[in-house]
Amino acid sequence: MQFLSDNAAAVHPLVWEAMHAADASDAPYDGDGLSRELDARFSHLFGRDCAALWVATGTAANCLALATMVQPHGAVVCHEEAHIEMDEGGAPGFYLHGAKLLLVPGEGAKLTPETVRAAIDPIRDDVHQVQPHAVSITQASEYGCAYRADEVAAIASLAKQRGLGLHMDGARFANATAFLDCSASQAAGAVDALSFGCIKNGAMSAEAILLFDPAAADVARYRRKRAGHLQSKGRFLAAQLLAMLEGDLWLHNARAANAAAQEIAGAAADRLMHPVEANELFVRCSAAEREALRQQGFGFYDWGADAARFVTAWNTRAEDAAALARALAGL
Amino acid sequence: MQFLSDNAAAVHPLVWEAMHAADASDAPYDGDGLSRELDARFSHLFGRDCAALWVATGTAANCLALATMVQPHGAVVCHEEAHIEMDEGGAPGFYLHGAKLLLVPGEGAKLTPETVRAAIDPIRDDVHQVQPHAVSITQASEYGCAYRADEVAAIASLAKQRGLGLHMDGARFANATAFLDCSASQAAGAVDALSFGCIKNGAMSAEAILLFDPAAADVARYRRKRAGHLQSKGRFLAAQLLAMLEGDLWLHNARAANAAAQEIAGAAADRLMHPVEANELFVRCSAAEREALRQQGFGFYDWGADAARFVTAWNTRAEDAAALARALAGL
Amino acid sequence: MQFLSDNAAAVHPLVWEAMHAADASDAPYDGDGLSRELDARFSHLFGRDCAALWVATGTAANCLALATMVQPHGAVVCHEEAHIEMDEGGAPGFYLHGAKLLLVPGEGAKLTPETVRAAIDPIRDDVHQVQPHAVSITQASEYGCAYRADEVAAIASLAKQRGLGLHMDGARFANATAFLDCSASQAAGAVDALSFGCIKNGAMSAEAILLFDPAAADVARYRRKRAGHLQSKGRFLAAQLLAMLEGDLWLHNARAANAAAQEIAGAAADRLMHPVEANELFVRCSAAEREALRQQGFGFYDWGADAARFVTAWNTRAEDAAALARALAGL
Amino acid sequence: MQFLSDNAAAVHPLVWEAMHAADASDAPYDGDGLSRELDARFSHLFGRDCAALWVATGTAANCLALATMVQPHGAVVCHEEAHIEMDEGGAPGFYLHGAKLLLVPGEGAKLTPETVRAAIDPIRDDVHQVQPHAVSITQASEYGCAYRADEVAAIASLAKQRGLGLHMDGARFANATAFLDCSASQAAGAVDALSFGCIKNGAMSAEAILLFDPAAADVARYRRKRAGHLQSKGRFLAAQLLAMLEGDLWLHNARAANAAAQEIAGAAADRLMHPVEANELFVRCSAAEREALRQQGFGFYDWGADAARFVTAWNTRAEDAAALARALAGL
Repeated sequence: MQFLSDNAAAVHPLVWEAMHAADASDAPYDGDGLSRELDARFSHLFGRDCAALWVATGTAANCLALATMVQPHGAVVCHEEAHIEMDEGGAPGFYLHGAKLLLVPGEGAKLTPETVRAAIDPIRDDVHQVQPHAVSITQASEYGCAYRADEVAAIASLAKQRGLGLHMDGARFANATAFLDCSASQAAGAVDALSFGCIKNGAMSAEAILLFDPAAADVARYRRKRAGHLQSKGRFLAAQLLAMLEGDLWLHNARAANAAAQEIAGAAADRLMHPVEANELFVRCSAAEREALRQQGFGFYDWGADAARFVTAWNTRAEDAAALARALAGL
Repeated sequence: MQFLSDNAAAVHPLVWEAMHAADASDAPYDGDGLSRELDARFSHLFGRDCAALWVATGTAANCLALATMVQPHGAVVCHEEAHIEMDEGGAPGFYLHGAKLLLVPGEGAKLTPETVRAAIDPIRDDVHQVQPHAVSITQASEYGCAYRADEVAAIASLAKQRGLGLHMDGARFANATAFLDCSASQAAGAVDALSFGCIKNGAMSAEAILLFDPAAADVARYRRKRAGHLQSKGRFLAAQLLAMLEGDLWLHNARAANAAAQEIAGAAADRLMHPVEANELFVRCSAAEREALRQQGFGFYDWGADAARFVTAWNTRAEDAAALARALAGL
Repeated sequence: MQFLSDNAAAVHPLVWEAMHAADASDAPYDGDGLSRELDARFSHLFGRDCAALWVATGTAANCLALATMVQPHGAVVCHEEAHIEMDEGGAPGFYLHGAKLLLVPGEGAKLTPETVRAAIDPIRDDVHQVQPHAVSITQASEYGCAYRADEVAAIASLAKQRGLGLHMDGARFANATAFLDCSASQAAGAVDALSFGCIKNGAMSAEAILLFDPAAADVARYRRKRAGHLQSKGRFLAAQLLAMLEGDLWLHNARAANAAAQEIAGAAADRLMHPVEANELFVRCSAAEREALRQQGFGFYDWGADAARFVTAWNTRAEDAAALARALAGL
Repeated sequence: MQFLSDNAAAVHPLVWEAMHAADASDAPYDGDGLSRELDARFSHLFGRDCAALWVATGTAANCLALATMVQPHGAVVCHEEAHIEMDEGGAPGFYLHGAKLLLVPGEGAKLTPETVRAAIDPIRDDVHQVQPHAVSITQASEYGCAYRADEVAAIASLAKQRGLGLHMDGARFANATAFLDCSASQAAGAVDALSFGCIKNGAMSAEAILLFDPAAADVARYRRKRAGHLQSKGRFLAAQLLAMLEGDLWLHNARAANAAAQEIAGAAADRLMHPVEANELFVRCSAAEREALRQQGFGFYDWGADAARFVTAWNTRAEDAAALARALAGL
């Protein structure tokens, strides 16, 4: 009964099917028919023109997107517990050629206009201090919290006013959209670039970088190749992305993961450190309680000394979620 | 009748099968059982200890390998038509943080101790000039020529004597090994790192970086993550690599591609620009002749104004190879 | 009556004199007799072998020193108000090719073994997190506090135990040494590299990078050239450094600046935010008080909303220091 | 009798004088009155608006200028013997974050529209190949040859047409201008950025980066700081530059060096490898002849096996030039 992460869950059968179908083509790189369909399909989904580039990891997606907005001498404003700061092995420093991350605190790993301003207003406009070039937010956040449309709008407005690019790390964008029960466009707001996550949601090895600025798309294409991320059999990545979009599989899968998370959340409401607005639960529990849960066969990560993190996935079994709910209720 | 490249050929059924089998696990990154098997399997194949890391592209493999040998202020000696110089979109400059490629001419896109010496001996040992830190050779070369064991040994000996690392780009290492009819160990010689190519040889999206120096392996692991190349479902890459090794599928596939190339070569012997020692043919032919071939349904790249490049793959059909042989003979 | 900074103070007459004398030579780069004397002179001063390289700025000195210890995928532990973090325009990100600064809080802008441990102990030894490669401390600190020999020793011991390099930013090393009334060697402790500052202490445009590891010196020489910091008339930088060492001018100048700072400190003891152990004073005072001081002709920087920073220099006039002391006492 | 180089020649008395005068100010960085005068003074000299930034070396000037034109994934077209390729220790790779130098052959180390086109036209407009972002030419060239106004214009026109920035390395711009007997503006043509050299021409440690694009100036200011090239006592660099401009000292000095070169050239006309259009002479002579010259007390560099390089400077003594002329004539 695995709740460690959604990042290595099984591949959805429809994704497998699409990948097999893609084997028929032999056009290299992103010259195949599937890759060429991506721009139109994602533009349609988001209701505005974008370029859609596949890459194999969320880290590559985030960093390539940011590289279109941030010069080497600039900085990205992000939450101090953002994935790009905590879990990407310094990839932003690599991709952005030494640009800085300006870390901002805040509830639920979310930024607000206030916290962004508090970080950037003290920066003197002189060459001794690194100037912000972009803001990056995570939808859903690293604590499983979803930005509402007005929250994104407020940050986007501040970013625009200050001349900053706005990037959204959407590793769990599907879960946020499903939770918010809104359109993709509403969940993304006026971001300039979005890392549209699929791997945690049933794909094997494909994320989409969505770039709403055509000039940025051109840069990202060169940078993707330069980073060794332009696969010669890219059709298999395109196939995964298209399979996720087809029939809204991305939402279907996310709803399943969210529902499992909600069931568990219901049983542990008083222990929750953050509202459950996606498929992650951060649950206060003692070492002894965690040990008891592990004895019952549940897999999960400790979260500091006094909590545990549980993540559901598109394929979390109903009985496993129910069992965890019972176990948490019974602690 | 496609002879454009082997880089986007179909995925071998045994690779598909292994990938499906890998779906059962859900251990993330390279913590799964398949990934953990790689070091032992490749060490066995090469008869000496190595660390084996999967990555999704040959560019990433080459650059991560070189990054273990070359400091940002150093240089890599390579052929002026090497893939790292010509076709990787500047990836070495990115991964090596601005280190330089020192370009060397030479027949068949091969280096020799003499040409390497001619490039590095004039470099004064002072800070005004970039010093070589490594040599990179391609097996088989960009013109489909295989280095014999004594040729690699001579370069390795020079590299060792000058304190340079030795990297081998083995995007078509299988084809070279099959042609030489020797062991993997003999085809690689005393290189410090090898990009063991599989994608052009029946895999979907996995190459192996083989590092024969344990300290280098540690650096490469951090750099792989930092480059966004550590896939969370890495088991699917490991599965591909293991499938290629299983029952020597890698050699089996390469032999098939080589045999098709030899059949075609036999029919165009007097037109060959380079000996055919792998699965690539560079064939002198006029624009009119190329047009005639295309009229007959053959796909291939022009190679300058007076030649064409034909590449066979593991799945080139016998009848297509025969047809091309006939067509070339009939020109 | 200027207390803005020591960083642009006049050049000491003996420095001018040495520079003029250097004009006689015409050996380029660091091949002149003066540059060649540096290793021996600094090795003598510190009582252990070191390589001494001139550079034109403290930023270059810090970053080139760190570049010998930190790989691009690593990190430097430093205080959150360290000069390298706050005031170098992102130079560490540039020179270290994207390596990270791990920021540590602490009284007086000083690190302790405890705060360093608190920063690095939670870092899991896996590739997802950036690993520390070095620690950087500032002597005297950014708040004008001097590390005692045992404090440096404790940090050096921790660094050694964890395999981390130890760098000391000595932009005001002279002031710290003068305050501690100890030898250069005692003030530096077992650091691996020291940025020996002269520019704030009477030189024009020369700092010394001292590298106590010969391998590091070799790297730093290449990196200095690569950063455009190898001046062809380097003899004028060497001359400045030698003039500072001659007759202990560096200590003489620092003592003068420190004495002026102490006189002022004596008059504002109850307003001091930090002990005055070099030539900087951080003084609590209201906006109105600051305005009053400015009306009296004193130049200085605001330090947040409720304080001011005063910096003395080697050439601060006794009457100016006395006047400031009186003015502060009279607030 | 020193003809090794002009790069370490004595500092002109008027430069010393200006530096001493600058000691009176204590405004830091480039906030002093002298630094603030630079834009206007250079704009006047060149007859169009530019930003003028001091830096301490030609390498820094070239690389910072190029960094305003070239993205990390791009390339600079330059001569294969350009200083940026041969003598800057890989600094372009560092400052341009791994961008490439595309090397072009050509007589006299000069580029022509034809050779530039030959280098860039074969580059396919796809992500596998590094795209040119700028062209860099050297005035006077590394072989002491001056570009005529129409030659620069032709290159500038090509650059503009292809969307490439145009940089001029003017380490010996003064010598070229003096030789051409034209205005600064005519010698520079329509370049986007110029490294205006002074150090080889009587200054101590100051070159000017001239940026004719205001947006580029902003980037260059941040990058200069980030590279550790923003000196806190920058007034001493500004003073040098202003002294060079004052009364056309830059031309006066260059004319002196050129005249000495011409005298020598006159005596060795049949041995010259390149026309002498600045202050460098490349003279065919055997090892025995070089030995004979050295015996007579002349200092110079060998240039390959069959030639020598002689460089005159602003302060080359008439009798030394005459002696060398006689000696060469007498070989």
